[in-house]
Amino acid sequence: MTSNKNEYLKRGVDYPIKDGKRTLPGKYYHSQEIYQEEIDKIFYKSWIYACRAEEIPLIGDYKLIEIADESLILVKDKSNKIKALFNVCSHRGTQLCTEPKGSFKSKSIQCPYHAWTYGLNGKLKSAPLMKESKDFQKAKCALHQAHVHIWEGFVFINLDKNPEPFEEQMKVLIGKFSDWKMDELRIAHHIKYELNCNWKLILQNYQECYHCPGVHPFLSELTPVQSAQHDSNHGAAIGGFMDLTKKRGSMTMNGEPAAPPICDVSGDDLQRIYYYSIFPNMLLTPHPDFVMFHHITPLGPDKIINDCYWLFRPEIINDPKAQSGIKSAVDFWDLTNKQDWTVCEQMQRGTKSARFTRGYYSGREDVLFQLDLELLKALGHKAID
Amino acid sequence: MTSNKNEYLKRGVDYPIKDGKRTLPGKYYHSQEIYQEEIDKIFYKSWIYACRAEEIPLIGDYKLIEIADESLILVKDKSNKIKALFNVCSHRGTQLCTEPKGSFKSKSIQCPYHAWTYGLNGKLKSAPLMKESKDFQKAKCALHQAHVHIWEGFVFINLDKNPEPFEEQMKVLIGKFSDWKMDELRIAHHIKYELNCNWKLILQNYQECYHCPGVHPFLSELTPVQSAQHDSNHGAAIGGFMDLTKKRGSMTMNGEPAAPPICDVSGDDLQRIYYYSIFPNMLLTPHPDFVMFHHITPLGPDKIINDCYWLFRPEIINDPKAQSGIKSAVDFWDLTNKQDWTVCEQMQRGTKSARFTRGYYSGREDVLFQLDLELLKALGHKAID
Amino acid sequence: MTSNKNEYLKRGVDYPIKDGKRTLPGKYYHSQEIYQEEIDKIFYKSWIYACRAEEIPLIGDYKLIEIADESLILVKDKSNKIKALFNVCSHRGTQLCTEPKGSFKSKSIQCPYHAWTYGLNGKLKSAPLMKESKDFQKAKCALHQAHVHIWEGFVFINLDKNPEPFEEQMKVLIGKFSDWKMDELRIAHHIKYELNCNWKLILQNYQECYHCPGVHPFLSELTPVQSAQHDSNHGAAIGGFMDLTKKRGSMTMNGEPAAPPICDVSGDDLQRIYYYSIFPNMLLTPHPDFVMFHHITPLGPDKIINDCYWLFRPEIINDPKAQSGIKSAVDFWDLTNKQDWTVCEQMQRGTKSARFTRGYYSGREDVLFQLDLELLKALGHKAID
Repeated sequence: MTSNKNEYLKRGVDYPIKDGKRTLPGKYYHSQEIYQEEIDKIFYKSWIYACRAEEIPLIGDYKLIEIADESLILVKDKSNKIKALFNVCSHRGTQLCTEPKGSFKSKSIQCPYHAWTYGLNGKLKSAPLMKESKDFQKAKCALHQAHVHIWEGFVFINLDKNPEPFEEQMKVLIGKFSDWKMDELRIAHHIKYELNCNWKLILQNYQECYHCPGVHPFLSELTPVQSAQHDSNHGAAIGGFMDLTKKRGSMTMNGEPAAPPICDVSGDDLQRIYYYSIFPNMLLTPHPDFVMFHHITPLGPDKIINDCYWLFRPEIINDPKAQSGIKSAVDFWDLTNKQDWTVCEQMQRGTKSARFTRGYYSGREDVLFQLDLELLKALGHKAID
Repeated sequence: MTSNKNEYLKRGVDYPIKDGKRTLPGKYYHSQEIYQEEIDKIFYKSWIYACRAEEIPLIGDYKLIEIADESLILVKDKSNKIKALFNVCSHRGTQLCTEPKGSFKSKSIQCPYHAWTYGLNGKLKSAPLMKESKDFQKAKCALHQAHVHIWEGFVFINLDKNPEPFEEQMKVLIGKFSDWKMDELRIAHHIKYELNCNWKLILQNYQECYHCPGVHPFLSELTPVQSAQHDSNHGAAIGGFMDLTKKRGSMTMNGEPAAPPICDVSGDDLQRIYYYSIFPNMLLTPHPDFVMFHHITPLGPDKIINDCYWLFRPEIINDPKAQSGIKSAVDFWDLTNKQDWTVCEQMQRGTKSARFTRGYYSGREDVLFQLDLELLKALGHKAID
Repeated sequence: MTSNKNEYLKRGVDYPIKDGKRTLPGKYYHSQEIYQEEIDKIFYKSWIYACRAEEIPLIGDYKLIEIADESLILVKDKSNKIKALFNVCSHRGTQLCTEPKGSFKSKSIQCPYHAWTYGLNGKLKSAPLMKESKDFQKAKCALHQAHVHIWEGFVFINLDKNPEPFEEQMKVLIGKFSDWKMDELRIAHHIKYELNCNWKLILQNYQECYHCPGVHPFLSELTPVQSAQHDSNHGAAIGGFMDLTKKRGSMTMNGEPAAPPICDVSGDDLQRIYYYSIFPNMLLTPHPDFVMFHHITPLGPDKIINDCYWLFRPEIINDPKAQSGIKSAVDFWDLTNKQDWTVCEQMQRGTKSARFTRGYYSGREDVLFQLDLELLKALGHKAID
């Protein structure tokens, strides 16, 4: 990827920033009704991140993905394609599978209750003792499926029956990070965080560095706050980058790179950390030397799980001498994450007050106002000035 | 009962068995509103199992029974009758009693708050310092009572003010198991299970053996799946029996009888295990040599307590040499119960999916369709084809 | 304070007591909707007890007060006044402060998220990088404040924007306990209780001694039940007193005084224990030698926190020889409190029954009927006979 100064909109430089736009009202972070609307209209209708393709490498391998009331079996079928099967037996609705991950050794999925058996492609193979008739036809009893799209090794699913094409929703992303060859990267580390805040607060937190001087003094040394720029500020994929202070540095405990640059990353990208929020449930942070990303799972208006992953080149993961670099990257972001979680949880509690009508965005938070507009559009709510 | 070669008559039904009848929609297992309707229209209106008469043998002995928002004191009064008193002081509503079981030594029930005192029959005996007047009359302050009916040593209660007679609701049961002289049996063992599923899934699970080959391989050896027949498939008491493979065997860890045949049990009954679900909260399983039963207490749409009891002849319970037989019966059913609980809990979770609209019953689950009709009738909901 | 027999209304002597007034229906203790109404119309509109002035003695000292969805910072400002600031940053609603108590050493309050900084008086001092404009004016971004009134060292707050004057709501209290010089007293001990009952049951329990013979046999020895009188039975502050059996005794484990009489307490007051419920969240019990009070925080229809405090003269608290007296007073009331909590929790459970329509008050509970009328008035509900 080559950079082009004109492409980026440096806030306060290429366009005037305005202080004082108003935030959403507090109910958007607390109302059970709005939360349910978000599940129905966003999480059940949009492309959402599910898992890495590497997590289900072989035929029969699966991982369960839970989202609100739905459980999906992401499984590699006999044609080496990943399917997203609803974890619901067509017979009487029993969950077929409860172990979070594993492998269907028999290359079929059998319900533990009455032994109805499905192929890895979801088709009903056998229903013991049942005869076909007008009332019961095996062909009508395949497992329901969600749509699947793999982008750069990331598996996305869409539970809607007629989804917008992935490329439409994620237009901005296509080709953007090709130099990282992210499909070749592998998970070096994973941390699961349980947080008491609304899922949108995490996206908001990720899209502004106005909080960095106070919350992340160390991060602010590595990447100056004023260097924050956005190169996409509309749509499902919103993001930009910050410049590294140190030449050939990275985001680690000592500011040194955790590993050599990844694949074809070159030029300005060697000095940049990208921050892309991929609406609604993924935050992607390509560094010159590794990729960190978050997978957000809402559990209620004030509760989420945030799974954080660090991706490196496989040869780095397998190199004993490279382990301290990986650890330094993990430790840096674990520290930084926890700083963020604290303020997000405090914001969750404060916005519950009846006196919080609507807050004020600074100009440095202008993208958050765009995120709010996206949300209101997705919910079909009237935009509020 | 004699068997008939025609397949559907063998199942004990006088209609052809069809595969493909549809189940209830998922909301019947998950909706808080439907659950509340069930409490109001079924658990507060039907005869429900409460306890064994043997649990309150002496005058003043009591056991508390909790059902949804209601707590009842089942107590033996001075005339040796069992009363079911609402555990609510007439003064200001305080619970009179909180210990799950015990004895009112004074032969009266005193509120711990202001010392209002009631007879074991529920009549208000004294209200300290209060004078009778138009506004306050002791005769109007007796404890509320539920109706009580004892059948074969099982105490049933009905919280409705004008209940249908017990014999009406339970027509099919009257006289059916007289040979067991169940009022003479005593509790040899009790296990309390807490389960995360709807109460109806337990009844459904109990009324079909279509799941036995996969879930209960050992049980299926002792009683062949194809031997399952129903001799009552309508109304509050639905049930049938299965044949024992081994002559003079029983349901124990080694298939041997746990004890000699009970009382007058004879003929075909020596080779049969009966399975009766006594709607809404009891499952009764007479064996030739003992009786096992379940007492189901709903705690919410997705939560129940299931108390399982094993009844034997008192002389068996008191015989040191008979203990290994009792243990073998307990162990067998504890194992089998746990196999059932696992699949019931998985069905609970799976039916939450929006993609579970309605499932398909196999012909071997035809009685479950009858149970669904009973439920819809009790709720006053329109039957769904 | 001098006594005048005619001033007091000795129940059953100076006015006829009538047995048989009816209690509130059970929903007033259980309904989530009524609870929310109580929060909105009572706890967010009335003067409520917050803390003792002594808890925030120096400029910058603060204590957090939580009430339903609101969190308030009670802080001593630079003019030595106590302010009650809503704990909600004007920027985006983040809670400014989470430690239950402490001191703002910098004499300013800084939001941990984006470093907006406020004076101890709540005025916004700085919002980093933001420029004033029509859309954003610092003067409009002061922290919201609740009203504050200090009475006898007790800090009351009112979250309503236009509250009734404190003196109006608490008319009866003004001057009533001047002899105790309660502003000079200090907290000698504090116990926090978590209880599973409605907040009103605690007030009711406190305003009648009909329960004392059964629940508090020891207390009844120290203060005869029949001595209970009320000198205020209307409005927000309802109360009366009981006579000590022992000359110059007090409410302690041995009935002896815990300390010498407080300040100017004299005459009949040396033989009296006062019981005042200060609607909605405080119970005040001046003794001749110390003051005990409760601070009730509702957490739901069936859950409260009750903070109980013992106040003594500072010279007593600092006197090693006086410690056993303090302990004896604490132990006596801790024992008595726990006796009350048990019956209040049992009343909570019992009143959930559908068979509890409405109970009967004895004449000795006539003030509870007045409390019910106050409640219904505050809620704007129709009085029920």
